[in-house]
Order: sequence, then C-alpha cells, then structure tokens
Amino acid sequence: MYMSSVPEYIKIVEEVFDKFKGREFLYIGKDVRRWDAVEKIKGKSLYTADFLKFYKNAVFVHSVRTKYAHALIKSIDVSEASKYPGVLKVITAKDIPGINDVGYVIPDQPLIADRKVRYIGDIVALIVAEDQMIAREAESLIHVEYEPLEVITDPLQVVDLMTLKEKPHTLIHDERGSDVLVHYKVRRGDMEKALREADVKVEGVYKTPFQEHAYLEPEAAIAIPEAEGGVTVISSTQCPFDVRKAVAKVLGVPLNRVRIVVPAVGGGFGGKEDVANEVAAKAALAAVLTGRPAVSIHTREESIIGHSKRHPMIAWYRHAAKKDGTLLAVEANIVMDTGSYASLGPFVPWRATVHATGPYKVGAARIDTKAVYTNNVYAGAFRGFGNPQVIFAVERQMDLLAEELGMDPVELRLKNILRVGDETVHGQKLTEEHGVGLEEALLKAVEASNWSSKRMEYRKAVGPLRKGIGVAIFYHGNSIGVEGADYSSVTLIINRDGSISFRTGLTEFGQGSTWGLVLIAAEILGVPPSYFKVENPDTSATPDAGPTVASRATVMGGAATVIAAHKLRKRLNEVASHILGCDPEDIVIKAPEVYCGSDPNRRTVWQDVVEQSFWLGIPLQEFGYYRAPRAVWDEETGQGAPYITYTFGAIVAEVTVDMETGLTKVDRIYTAYDIGRVINKVGAELNAEGGAIQALGYGLMEELIHDKDGRVMNPNLSTYYVPTIKDAPEIIPIWVEAHYRKGPLGAKGFGEPSFNAVATAIANAVSHAIGLPVYELPLTPERIYMMLKKAGKI
Amino acid sequence: MYMSSVPEYIKIVEEVFDKFKGREFLYIGKDVRRWDAVEKIKGKSLYTADFLKFYKNAVFVHSVRTKYAHALIKSIDVSEASKYPGVLKVITAKDIPGINDVGYVIPDQPLIADRKVRYIGDIVALIVAEDQMIAREAESLIHVEYEPLEVITDPLQVVDLMTLKEKPHTLIHDERGSDVLVHYKVRRGDMEKALREADVKVEGVYKTPFQEHAYLEPEAAIAIPEAEGGVTVISSTQCPFDVRKAVAKVLGVPLNRVRIVVPAVGGGFGGKEDVANEVAAKAALAAVLTGRPAVSIHTREESIIGHSKRHPMIAWYRHAAKKDGTLLAVEANIVMDTGSYASLGPFVPWRATVHATGPYKVGAARIDTKAVYTNNVYAGAFRGFGNPQVIFAVERQMDLLAEELGMDPVELRLKNILRVGDETVHGQKLTEEHGVGLEEALLKAVEASNWSSKRMEYRKAVGPLRKGIGVAIFYHGNSIGVEGADYSSVTLIINRDGSISFRTGLTEFGQGSTWGLVLIAAEILGVPPSYFKVENPDTSATPDAGPTVASRATVMGGAATVIAAHKLRKRLNEVASHILGCDPEDIVIKAPEVYCGSDPNRRTVWQDVVEQSFWLGIPLQEFGYYRAPRAVWDEETGQGAPYITYTFGAIVAEVTVDMETGLTKVDRIYTAYDIGRVINKVGAELNAEGGAIQALGYGLMEELIHDKDGRVMNPNLSTYYVPTIKDAPEIIPIWVEAHYRKGPLGAKGFGEPSFNAVATAIANAVSHAIGLPVYELPLTPERIYMMLKKAGKI
Repeated sequence: MYMSSVPEYIKIVEEVFDKFKGREFLYIGKDVRRWDAVEKIKGKSLYTADFLKFYKNAVFVHSVRTKYAHALIKSIDVSEASKYPGVLKVITAKDIPGINDVGYVIPDQPLIADRKVRYIGDIVALIVAEDQMIAREAESLIHVEYEPLEVITDPLQVVDLMTLKEKPHTLIHDERGSDVLVHYKVRRGDMEKALREADVKVEGVYKTPFQEHAYLEPEAAIAIPEAEGGVTVISSTQCPFDVRKAVAKVLGVPLNRVRIVVPAVGGGFGGKEDVANEVAAKAALAAVLTGRPAVSIHTREESIIGHSKRHPMIAWYRHAAKKDGTLLAVEANIVMDTGSYASLGPFVPWRATVHATGPYKVGAARIDTKAVYTNNVYAGAFRGFGNPQVIFAVERQMDLLAEELGMDPVELRLKNILRVGDETVHGQKLTEEHGVGLEEALLKAVEASNWSSKRMEYRKAVGPLRKGIGVAIFYHGNSIGVEGADYSSVTLIINRDGSISFRTGLTEFGQGSTWGLVLIAAEILGVPPSYFKVENPDTSATPDAGPTVASRATVMGGAATVIAAHKLRKRLNEVASHILGCDPEDIVIKAPEVYCGSDPNRRTVWQDVVEQSFWLGIPLQEFGYYRAPRAVWDEETGQGAPYITYTFGAIVAEVTVDMETGLTKVDRIYTAYDIGRVINKVGAELNAEGGAIQALGYGLMEELIHDKDGRVMNPNLSTYYVPTIKDAPEIIPIWVEAHYRKGPLGAKGFGEPSFNAVATAIANAVSHAIGLPVYELPLTPERIYMMLKKAGKI
Repeated sequence: MYMSSVPEYIKIVEEVFDKFKGREFLYIGKDVRRWDAVEKIKGKSLYTADFLKFYKNAVFVHSVRTKYAHALIKSIDVSEASKYPGVLKVITAKDIPGINDVGYVIPDQPLIADRKVRYIGDIVALIVAEDQMIAREAESLIHVEYEPLEVITDPLQVVDLMTLKEKPHTLIHDERGSDVLVHYKVRRGDMEKALREADVKVEGVYKTPFQEHAYLEPEAAIAIPEAEGGVTVISSTQCPFDVRKAVAKVLGVPLNRVRIVVPAVGGGFGGKEDVANEVAAKAALAAVLTGRPAVSIHTREESIIGHSKRHPMIAWYRHAAKKDGTLLAVEANIVMDTGSYASLGPFVPWRATVHATGPYKVGAARIDTKAVYTNNVYAGAFRGFGNPQVIFAVERQMDLLAEELGMDPVELRLKNILRVGDETVHGQKLTEEHGVGLEEALLKAVEASNWSSKRMEYRKAVGPLRKGIGVAIFYHGNSIGVEGADYSSVTLIINRDGSISFRTGLTEFGQGSTWGLVLIAAEILGVPPSYFKVENPDTSATPDAGPTVASRATVMGGAATVIAAHKLRKRLNEVASHILGCDPEDIVIKAPEVYCGSDPNRRTVWQDVVEQSFWLGIPLQEFGYYRAPRAVWDEETGQGAPYITYTFGAIVAEVTVDMETGLTKVDRIYTAYDIGRVINKVGAELNAEGGAIQALGYGLMEELIHDKDGRVMNPNLSTYYVPTIKDAPEIIPIWVEAHYRKGPLGAKGFGEPSFNAVATAIANAVSHAIGLPVYELPLTPERIYMMLKKAGKI
C-alpha cells in the first residue's frame, strides 16, 4: 500500500478532488467564523507567557549576551554571579548535558557560546534566578575575557559580487575554513547565443535590507521538569517538532522525553522557527538543572537582536530580450547575507535561486547564488523565504526592460508569463493539474485597477504630489520542495456525542490555516465547523506534522485532513447505509441530518450514526497522513521539478509620493492571487491584507541597521519602524482559482505569497511616480529624497 | 472491512497469536522493570493533588453533606454562607448549568441533592472558597430544613429473601415507584427432575459485608477553566472517558469541550469509577462558575462515606447432587444491597448471577438475583464485581456438600469442574480457543500445598491453636460482556529518532496493565520496552478506550495494541526489506539490530529503518482499535455466551485459629491462576499478592457498618480495619497458561480474579480449623468467638 509508486493517500486526495468538482460547498470558501476569533478579540486566548499565571514557583532565565560581535572567549568567570542572592544557577556551555548546538539546518550555532562569539546576540551564560530583576542585577558579576576580532558586516567583504569569489577576510566560521555557506545554480539554454540574438539588454544591481518579523508576541517558553530527565515546554513556536528535536539534543534525551505544547502564538512569519528552539532549550535547561518550572521570555530588544531576520540580498541582474519583448535570457549573481549563523540559510537562497527568473518563460538562464556569513544578526526564514528579494530584482528589471522597449509593463509581462503547457526555467512542465492562473490574475488586477488609463495619466502629473501605479507578478513554489521530507498529519476523533476533536502538529500563529483544515474536514464529513474542537499542538499527542512553514499548512495539512476525513466519511456512510438501507454512496450527511439522497424520507441524525458506529465496532478515529510527491533538483544545473505546484499572483499598487520630502503614501493595492481553491475565505482575505501591509513596511520603511561593530542601531519598535494602521492602504483582494488536483480540494498555499510582490509593486509605482528607476529597498523618504536630489529633480 | 462478520482486527489478533505460538519471547513473561517503578518508589510520581504545587490561585470546593440519611429537603438558605469572607460562591442544585445527575448507569443520582437526600453522603451544597478552612467554617452558615423519613438499612426490609417479593416500606426512590433496581435470572434444565433424582441436598444462607476500597489516594480532581465554557480536569479516575461524559453533562457542553487528564493514580479497585465523576464535576462546576482553577479533594472520612462500596449479599443457596458427587442442581435467591443509588448496581448483580453456580457443570439451575435500594452508602464496582460474593456462597456450599457426601472437597470439585468441551450453566460451550485451565490450576494448587496430607492431619489438632486448610475455585468472565460495548484503543507513534510514544485512554492505577501493553508492543515491534514513553491518559489526545474496569485492560487494550503494533511492524518490515533486499517476512527486528533472518550479514539498525520510513512517506503512527466479539444473553433464561472467555483459578489457604480469642492468622496462600498468556510477569505476581491481601481483609476484618439511622460507624482507617503488611501471609503464585486465541498473544484478564476466591478459601480453611460451617464474612475474632461459644466449643 505504502511502497507502491503512487501511495494510497495521493490517490485519495485526487479522488476527493474529482468527487467535489463542481459541487456547491457548505463551508469551504464561505464566511465561517473561526473558533478562536471571539476569544482572541476579547483577549482571553492564552499565549505562552500567560501560563505564568498558573505556574507557581517558576524561575527566570536571563541570557547574558556578548559585548562584541566577533571575538574569541578567553575565559569566563561566573562564580561571583552564582553567589548573588536569588541566583539559583549560572549556566555556561560546560553545563549542557547534551549537545551545545541549536543550528536549525547545520550544527554551526552553539546555544551558549564557548570558544568564540559571532554576533551581538550570542549568549555567553544563562542566569537562572528567582526573578527577572535579580538575574539582570547579577549580570554585571559575570566576567568574560574576550579577544576582539575584525567585524564583518558587509557580505561583499566576503565575496565579490561580479566574480562571486571569496575574498581574504577574518573568518567568522574558521572551523569551516570558509564563510561561503552555499552556492546554488541554474543553467538553462545557450546563454551566448541568446545574448547574441538579443535586441536589448538591461542590467542593474539590486539591494534589499534585513527585515525584522516584529511579531506582536516576542519569544517565550515555559519549561516544566518531568520524569526521567524529561521536560514539557510551552513554546511560542511555529514548529513544535523542531523544538522537540532541539531540546532533546541539548538535554541529551530521546525525543519522547520532551513534550512541546503550543498555545496561542502571537505571530510567526517564519521568525518562530529557529529562535523558538533556542528559547525552549534555555528554559528546558534551567528547568532540568533546577528542578523547577523555568521561564525564558525575550524582551523586544532581545527579540530584535537575538532572532533571525530576512536575508538581505545584493544582486546583479542582466535581462536580454528581442524587440518584440520576447525574453531571451536572464543572468544573475545573487549574494545573500546569512549573518552569523546558518539558521535557514541553506534553504532560503535555494528558494531565491529557484524563483530567480520570475514566472516567465526563459530560453537561457544562468543564476549563481551565494549565501555568506557575516557578523550581522543571523538571517533565516521570513514570509516569502528569498522570493521577495529576487522578485524585487526581476520585476524591477522587467520594468526597465519595458521602458527600454517602449512597451507597457503589463504587455511585456503578458508576452512572457508562464501558462499551462509551458516549462519553467527548471524544465518543469506546468500542466492543467498544477493549476496555472497567472494570466487570469494579471488581467484581473489590471482590469480592476484601471491600469492602462492610470499608467498614462499619472505620468502627466506636475506639482509636489505625484501619483504612480506599478505592477509586479510572481510565482511561489508550494511547500518545502527538495528542502526536506514534505509530509504532514492530522488527527480526527469523533466523540460519542458526535462532537469532534481535531489535532495537528501544524500550528496556528495567526494565519488561519488550522481553521482551513477544520473547514476541509467539516465539508468532507458533512458536519458544521462548530462541531469541532481544535486542540493545541502537542508533540506527545500528535504525530509529527512537519514544520508550519513554506505556506504548507493548508496544502500539506489539508491533504492529510482529506485523508482522515475521507476514511471516516466512508465508514460513516457504511453505518448510515446499514441504518437506512440505501447504498453507502447514496448517503447524504448534512449534520445533524443524515438521509438517503435518492429518498430523503429515509433519514436519521448524525448522533445516531455515531452511536451505531460505536456499537458496530467501527472506530471513528483516524490519523490522516500525506506525503507530497518527491521534488527533483539537479544541483549543478538547477533543472528538475523543485516544487509540487505554484501559487501565482499579480499586484498592482498605486502610490502618492511627496516630491519635496520623499514621503510615499500607498493609496491602493490590488492583489490578484491564484491560490487554487480558496478554503478559508475570511482567512485568505485577511492574509492578503496582512501580507500587503507587512510588505508595505518592507517596501517603504523597514530596515535593520548594524553599525560597523555589528551592533544593531535600531533594536526596538521606536527606532525600527513598522507600518501602523494609519499606513494601511485600501486593499482589494481578487481571487483566481486554478485548482491543484493533488491539493486538498484543489487548494494551493498562500501564507507567504501574500507578501511576495507587494513591496515591488509599490517600488515600481514609486518609480513610475518619480520617473526614476529604483534599485534598493526600503524606499524611505530619505532614500527617495536623495535620489530626487541626485537626479536634479529637487 | 469493518462491516464484515469477522472484522479485520479480530483476524489480526488471531493471526498474531498463531504467529507467535511456540516462539521464545524477549519481553513478555519476563522480568522487565516498569517505566514508573523507580519514580514511584522515590515518591516522585505526581498524583492529582500534587499538581496543586504548580497551580496558583486555586479555589477549594467543600461538600456540605446531609444531616439525615433519608429526608425531604424543604428549603435551603445559603445567603449567609455566601457572604462569609473568603467564600466565592455557594453552589446549589439550581446553579448547575447542565443536568444535575452523576448516575453512572442510570440517571438516579443528583450531583447536588435538591428534592430529597437518600444517604448520609448526599451533598446539599458546595462551598467554593479561597481555602479549605474557610469553606469548612462557612458550612455552619448554611441552613437546610429537612423532613426526615424512615431510614432503610437492611435490604430485607425491601424484599423477602425466600420469595424475593418487594415488601411495603418507605420508598427511597419514590420517583421510580419501586426500590428493586434489577432482577436477573438463570433458568437451565429440569429443576424438579434434578431435585427428585438427587441423593443429597445442602442449603444455607450466606452473607457478605460492605467493603471499602481503601485505596491509598482518596478522591481528587483539579479543574482548570478553558475557552468556550470548557474545562480541563486532572482527575484521579479509572475511566477518564466516563468522567468526561459526566462533567460535560453537568456543565451542559459537548464532550470535546471537556478534557480529562489522568496523572498517577493511587489505587482504584473499581472505586474510582463512579465517584471520580462526582469529584471531577464538583471541581469543574467551581472552575467554570468562578473562572479559577478549582480543587476538590476528599478527606478519608468523606471518601469512606461518600463513595461506592462492594455490594453486600444475602443469598439462600441449595445444591443437589448424586451420591457419587455429580452436581445435579443449584438453586439460589440472591439479594444485593445497592445502597442509596444505582451506580454500577445494574451491572454487579448481573455478573453475580452469571457466576452464581461457580465453574461447574450444572444440569439444572435456577438463579434469581435482585438488587435493592437502601439508605446505606451506595454500592458499586469493586474488584470481583459480584463474583466474590457468590463464590463465598457456592464454595461454602461445595464444602458442605463434600462433607455431606464424605468426599474430599478437592475430589468433589474435580468431579464437576468445567473443562474444554463442557457447557457453562448458560449453555456456552468452552473450546480450546477459550483456554480452560481450571483442572490444571486446581491440581497444581493441591500439589504445591500438599493438600491431602494437611487436610487429614490438621483435623487431628488439639489445643488452643488450630490449623485449617481450605480450597476455593472460581471462573471469571473476561471484560464487560453484555454490560456495554467492549472496545478499546491505543496510540503508537514511532518518533523520528526511533523512540516511541505510547498512549491509551486506559488507566494505570497500580495494577500494571499499561506496562503489559507496552510489553506487547515491544515484543511485536522487536524493540526494547525502554524505547517507549508512556504518556498520561488524556481524553483530548486519545480516542475513547472504554473504562479501565472488569479486568479488561490487558485483554482489550492488549488486543488493540496488537493491532497497532502489527500494522506498524508490517510497514517496518517492508521498509527494512527495501533496504536489505530480503523478503519482508524474513526481516528480524531486535532493536537496535535489524537483519535478514536468512542472512544475518545483511543488516542495518532500527534508527535507519525509521529514518527511511520517514523519507519513503510511510507513516509510523497508528491507532489500534479492537472490539470484542458480541456477548449474547437472554434476559429470561440467562442462556447465551455472556463473556468472551474466562479466567480460572484455584486457591488453597492455610490458617491458624486461636480458639480462645477467635483470632485467625493466615499462614499461607497458594494461588493457581489460568490467566492465559502471562504478559507482565512481575505485574501478575504483584497482583496475585495484592489481591490476596485485600481478600484476606475481606475474609477476616473488613466490614463497613451503618447504624440504624444510616450513619457510617467506622468512617476512617482507625476503625475500619484493612490488612497491614503484618497480616500478609506467604503467598505462592502458580501460573497456568491456557491461551485465549482472541486475546493479545493468548492473554486473559487478571485484575479482579486475584481477589475473587481468596476470602472464601480462607473461610473454608477456618471452617476446617474450627470444625464448624461458616455462613458470613468477615470472620472477625468476635464472630468466630461467638460461633465457637454457640457451638459449645469454648
């Protein structure tokens, strides 16, 4: 069953998709209030730190961080601090019972630095004390002798942009012998021939900044010591199974001795992948070493300094095209700054590389991406995962190319975009079954925004306030691709009274995907979503569902939900058939009603079917498990089928730029997305809005700045600006449903795509407004002002 | 698959039994230390009340109990108590949001009495206060006006023993119109003919007392309020799913809004079935009504007064036999006192009725059992569940009959016992597949004890210290039979590192059955038990496993474990076959080693197989579900197949009686049990010992006494005597393994059987020692002294 070429679960997902084709849905794509909406609005949801109100006798863990961004540790003396009244224990690297490493993908990141420190957030000791104040007071009694080293804050100190060769520099990861973390490539077609045949070429160097996740809830974990050296950790994480692995590694115990429970989580955006491991491990260590519940909570400043950021990119791009706009070639050298540690750094540049040419047919391509270590705050996962960076470069290039060709940017894009039957730059043929709705999305966004007339009209403006309209399109590979084993699982238990318990190890951190899974189960079973109880993720109770990342919760978790719900529905149909006498396939369930489709007078109720199942010995519990078809990728050529399918999108943004101050106001954003079947309609709409606003920040204001010593100059929300509700423009969501047949009822992923192209559409609109090309994000007033000044426009 | 006549899961259990036949086991039947042994010995296990050390801000619930055992409530005024400083809320019946009932089988028992009180433990109000002392102080401020009614403490006030007709009396359950709860019957053969043909008849009236469970840990629950009117309850219970149902009913919410978690439990013996519902409901009510964690813990006195007891029995028996000892007929009128509420009262007398003739071939039988309400503490489940009571009557009768016939008691029993091919008194034919090891057990006990010579020799003794040797045999229907749907389920999850998480909704309350399930899984998977983590039962995480009662955990939970482990093993074999290239059936797993049986050089390790499963998309998580074949029972004749199979046992006890004081010392107990396959060897041995010691108490000292007003005269452990380690005799366990093919690897149940016949064997030994028949338990020094005095022996 499982070892066959197409496993049963993939067949079931396709079968269920076909079965529901053209059917009217009851809950999917409808307005259904999610289970925790009222609770959250009322402030009643319990987030990790809220559990302190239950736990007596908890100790606090305070992280003592390095004074230097790059230094050798010569010695550390904690004896004085250990004796400070109220301090229970000072933990240094040597106290770790297991392995001193919290590297997410590769083991390059000590939980507590021992030999050297590599960025300003590195921890040299943990003070465990009766309360936070005591721990902070004791910090000054810890004496560390450092030998400072040269601090590298510019990735171009490590590699040359045009040759991509590593430069001589003080090695940060001297143990590796190189500070180049990864090198990914795409090689397609005959580049020389393409460049020869090209009528026009445009090139540019593009830069994007470090971005901070700025989630509402900074990192937190509470650890409770358990039997056999084990621990339960309440953790604010996206990936409880990764946290479990990290904690088990640090404690030196098997996975089943560590239990991670995830309560309400106040935002993630990719940021609560790696750092959650560190925070949980700190709490777990303290709990195990003191035998008391232990709390590790980051302040906002610690959060900003001490957790991963969006990878900054510096990229050189060259596009070549024919006069008619046909794209012939794309060349790119991409350098990404992964900061002090790898974190998700081995994966993010891979996604950037895969998406580096945008959603276009490209005859010839050469992409080289290198991620390099610096002494900056480490970079990791962040909504979009490398794609927003290359989208900025590619979509700016497309606008330059359109300008060069004298074509409308939309026209140029329509000429080259991917449609059903086309091959991607990796040679992956897109079929009807993938669902390819890019053209429709672009046309709808253009139509809704009245693109053509505005594009013409805005250019004519004079005076200090200039309007601009810009477009940007993208595709986004769904789920993990070759980055890992792409599986998921959920648990459905129908209780004796007909109520249903739903569990998954996938997490809900605001995005609404878990509610989408409930809607899928509700639709397939034929019961209202109100019958469900969503249980918190708990690694002891749920099988590994994989990480909640890569926009995979709906598409992977949804597929697993389809499996579980379908299996249960089949059994329920059999039982109802046994009760009512009609064929199992004829059974209609619209709980509480259950009847024969061919004879609705033959009817019973949901609870009766559940009760009869019980007496007939038919189990109403099921694990749903799904594993995506295998991704294929050739490391040398970048050819293969890197992702199972793609989400597509087209964004049109309208801005007003104050030519005197450089201040940009975004007026309106049209977001047209092909996400396959829209499952959780309200969630999708809110995600489109949330993604757009966060991307607005990326486009116009957000930028984490390090000084030359590697210190973060804006480590809190009064100096690191994020958009407020006052910055939020009108957002017009448009949905295109090109169904993915192997997705749950045709759905594709949408967590990240809502972010992807918005900043670039805004940048293109700004460029349109000010009549100047832009090469760098964010487009702060200062930056625009300087551009205008340099161009002599003011 | 599920709707077929023999479901897949039953076939799998048989298949696995056949497969392991004759194989050498690694863990089953071996000395393997259970996971929680060290923790428990060190006092580190957390019992319900221990969780108070974690919970801040908890409120205490104090039960205000009635002043009268039988009265109408005219009015209740809680206004003054409500205002007492520190009192948060006084809860009366009208405050219950759901249904005011905690009846276990039938809805006859209000959580908080409203109209009338029926026993001295009835609750009239709950005081919720900041601490226990405040709540107790406020009790005097609650004013209840009662109208006392006649108190019925003798079941023979309700029915006549010889006619079994209901007598005129003040009705306790006036709403039912009768105080007869149930009437069960067995009708077999031609009674008149049998009595006509009989050479000898013996008859007697037998009495057994109320017995208290006297578990180490009195009842406790801590409830934490949750979202949507829900609650999590940490509960000291045997049956978390029953507690969930009761709490949901009282709160008026669906089952999935109530989560019951069961930590370490300090004993159950059947007592933590019904009362756990009441205690959890009290805590849950307080938590929901105050919004704070709420604690309900019974004092020992409350525990003794306020929870169910073993049903007292008064039975008239007549046995008829031929001269050669052939048993021709058994007649019995059995009256059981179910006390004030039904609790398990509808089921206990049924089991008594089924077992009322003992494990003998009986040509003709007429059994009538009635359970009646009185104003005594209510009776419910207690290890043995009605069987120990009838065993006392039957096995005393067999000794009387042997005496009358001049036969050795063993010889008479061997003449009549059930063997393979025989029909039980219900017409159920016992086959090889049932496993019938009674004869072997009896012969082994007789041989080990040197029965014949001691039986002869002890009679000759003179002087004040007299020795006696007695025998008693029994059978015990496994699991629930027709009492309910007999299903179970477990969850097995193999984690990525090869460690395993095991969960079941069956509970571990000292008996060791959960460890037995782990051994079964370990044996089938081929991994050491140390790879497992046993997670606490949690109704939100585990499917309903049914109650942990009726000696069903090993046989039902074990079967479910077989299903889960077998399914996973099959997948692991396929993966190992994929790695090693030999046939899946050829794969040997002795973790960490995995190799081809036919070529042990082709080998890998357990973790590799697990890791490969993961990459191959093969889920290593499984719910095991099992439902027993359906029991059959005709209400009018008592014919059918009431249980899936039977455990058998033969006990020989040796005693010394001080003829001057009546004090009995038990010297030695030989316990020979056929429990099918011995799974958890250490657990079985300890259960044999524990059951024997508890039964020693039942035989010699334990008796809950009510005064004429229905008040308990010995409501604590200084007046209600239980055996101490000083009373513990030498116990020699003997195992007979007549495998049950539908049981997990041949196992049958053993929780209760260890108790069943020990008191009776002791009573028969006492009778042998003192040379007088005994008709009543317990054989306290006072009772023996009076018998001896009456008989003129002192």
